[in-house]
Amino acid sequence: MEKLLLGPGPSNLTQEVRRGLSQPAIGHLDPEFLAILDETCDLLRWIFKTDNKVTFPLTASGSGAMEATAMNLVEDGTKVVIGINGAFSLRAKEMLSRLGAQVIEVLSPWGSPLDIDEINKAVKIHKPQILWLVHGETSTGVLNSVESVKKEESIFVVDCVTSLGGVDFRMDEWGIDVAFSGTQKCLNVPPGLAPISFSSQAMEVLKPSKSWYFDLSLIAEYILSDGPRTYHHTAPINMIFGLLASLKRIKSIGLDDVFIQHLNAAEFLYSKFEKMGFDLVVDRKFRLPQLTTVYIPEDLRSKETNIRSRLLNDFNIEIGGGLGVLANKIWRIGLMGINANIKNVELLIDSLNQLLNECN
Amino acid sequence: MEKLLLGPGPSNLTQEVRRGLSQPAIGHLDPEFLAILDETCDLLRWIFKTDNKVTFPLTASGSGAMEATAMNLVEDGTKVVIGINGAFSLRAKEMLSRLGAQVIEVLSPWGSPLDIDEINKAVKIHKPQILWLVHGETSTGVLNSVESVKKEESIFVVDCVTSLGGVDFRMDEWGIDVAFSGTQKCLNVPPGLAPISFSSQAMEVLKPSKSWYFDLSLIAEYILSDGPRTYHHTAPINMIFGLLASLKRIKSIGLDDVFIQHLNAAEFLYSKFEKMGFDLVVDRKFRLPQLTTVYIPEDLRSKETNIRSRLLNDFNIEIGGGLGVLANKIWRIGLMGINANIKNVELLIDSLNQLLNECN
Repeated sequence: MEKLLLGPGPSNLTQEVRRGLSQPAIGHLDPEFLAILDETCDLLRWIFKTDNKVTFPLTASGSGAMEATAMNLVEDGTKVVIGINGAFSLRAKEMLSRLGAQVIEVLSPWGSPLDIDEINKAVKIHKPQILWLVHGETSTGVLNSVESVKKEESIFVVDCVTSLGGVDFRMDEWGIDVAFSGTQKCLNVPPGLAPISFSSQAMEVLKPSKSWYFDLSLIAEYILSDGPRTYHHTAPINMIFGLLASLKRIKSIGLDDVFIQHLNAAEFLYSKFEKMGFDLVVDRKFRLPQLTTVYIPEDLRSKETNIRSRLLNDFNIEIGGGLGVLANKIWRIGLMGINANIKNVELLIDSLNQLLNECN
Repeated sequence: MEKLLLGPGPSNLTQEVRRGLSQPAIGHLDPEFLAILDETCDLLRWIFKTDNKVTFPLTASGSGAMEATAMNLVEDGTKVVIGINGAFSLRAKEMLSRLGAQVIEVLSPWGSPLDIDEINKAVKIHKPQILWLVHGETSTGVLNSVESVKKEESIFVVDCVTSLGGVDFRMDEWGIDVAFSGTQKCLNVPPGLAPISFSSQAMEVLKPSKSWYFDLSLIAEYILSDGPRTYHHTAPINMIFGLLASLKRIKSIGLDDVFIQHLNAAEFLYSKFEKMGFDLVVDRKFRLPQLTTVYIPEDLRSKETNIRSRLLNDFNIEIGGGLGVLANKIWRIGLMGINANIKNVELLIDSLNQLLNECN
């Protein structure tokens, strides 16, 4: 029986994606494959809402795309303003620091949104080369208001690993220069592939990359060349088949309808938790619909891993625990892509209620 | 109709691999998945012939594993002796140089094997921290005799991307400290995953990695921890299902029988080319059975891309062209994993003969 994956990702795969993954392989220089890759890049431009030529699936997980961004934009002394309110901005800070960036942090508590006025002020004062924010923070369920940012002259980087395909994201309209995501969240593709996009302004300020594998200028010669394709590394053929199948499905439904599905499922989950007397972590205005975070009642915290194990083993439903400062304090419920529906919320809440009754 | 992939990789997938890829996803922290990951790592130890604890599938292509090796072993000024006789040792040199390594090259012509006496001499003279060799050179079809190396006090790195699973490779017996491979060659799994192994001696000399994504000490806390698994990045679930299916199949056949299949298919191909009057690039003693390189007769070189296109389009067979200095001069024929059989050689040669007759 298929497990229902309602954690922070991976989410369940669509049938189309599974069929795509299991297609016979073809060569990475076969014109048939290059056409599939081109179509995939076009649909990625569509879902990012960007015209950026440099838009493609990177052969790595979402964290690999985070690193590729750092490797290509940062060298010793590069000034970066970064908003920090969760595990994934801390991860970016760690990557940037390893490369010698001068990191200026604008902090908000975990579970609270970034204060965009503070961000804009920091940009005005420090005039950083890079401004780096997370859109949907997977560790807390916060949706940061990246659309209100004034980037000034900086290159604006946004981590949309969990947000892409679940809430509106307008790369070009919002002045975002670099965006990256992962396939295992709202796209319902397995982990291991990372959509990424660089604006022409970002491509103009590429630094000499310490990384050959993540060197965007080299990768672009294979993936995006109008002329002959220069082999860089072997593209992950079957994962790209899966990604294309997913993007086609989302396009056939329409992004606005997909966003509404996420909102409706989330609202239904909020109302269920409110009825149960559980407190949600994030203020309503800043909730990421595809990832709801809820405080575990004090008396259940010592049993929380046990409850999650039983949910997985007895009810076939996976949810996520907390990370970092929120470990053992919260649960993270993902309703991502095809998983964002009323039936899944009912299944989860019924199962959880049964388990909690047994605990009492 | 499925294409027959007789280039330098990807190779065709087995049915078991395709079924593995299309399984429903499960969580990367689900005990069911961690057991699958453990079994995969055990079978990788078996195929590498190593007891190294740090042996796992890296979330990247084979070139990503090459980079992970460099990122973890090299810092500014690290002395590396590297044998260079093809594109993939040149690639490693490029990666090492970006990280500030002091690279000492021991050169042989493309298509010739490395001179192991020269390598051993360079190690004795320069006392490098790292010795880096390619086992099966995918750009030339040369099998370098890494088993005859005297590494002295250096950390011995071997690139076995194309050799693993096609010819004998004895990591521990041959004193190899770091080995890495790719899944799309003799393992018949799609590209995008890279088996890698580090000896305890190599783990003791890890450098502070510029890369967070490829930081082996962090990855090991998730993949190889005996206690709780610390999340690093989301493991590529379905690709690992595919890899496990492949390794189980190879184990059920037995490595020695698999090697004999590769040898037999290669010998049959050599005899066919000899009959056609084509010259093989590599001396018999140093041929990589799973990748045969053959000179394109002078009068056909101007038409060689056209011949390969027609082979692909009209006969559904992919073969590879030359790289670097051998571009337009050679063809590369892969008989990898399940593709290493007599029937495939006959299909290829019959098709090629038909095309060449038309050319004359």
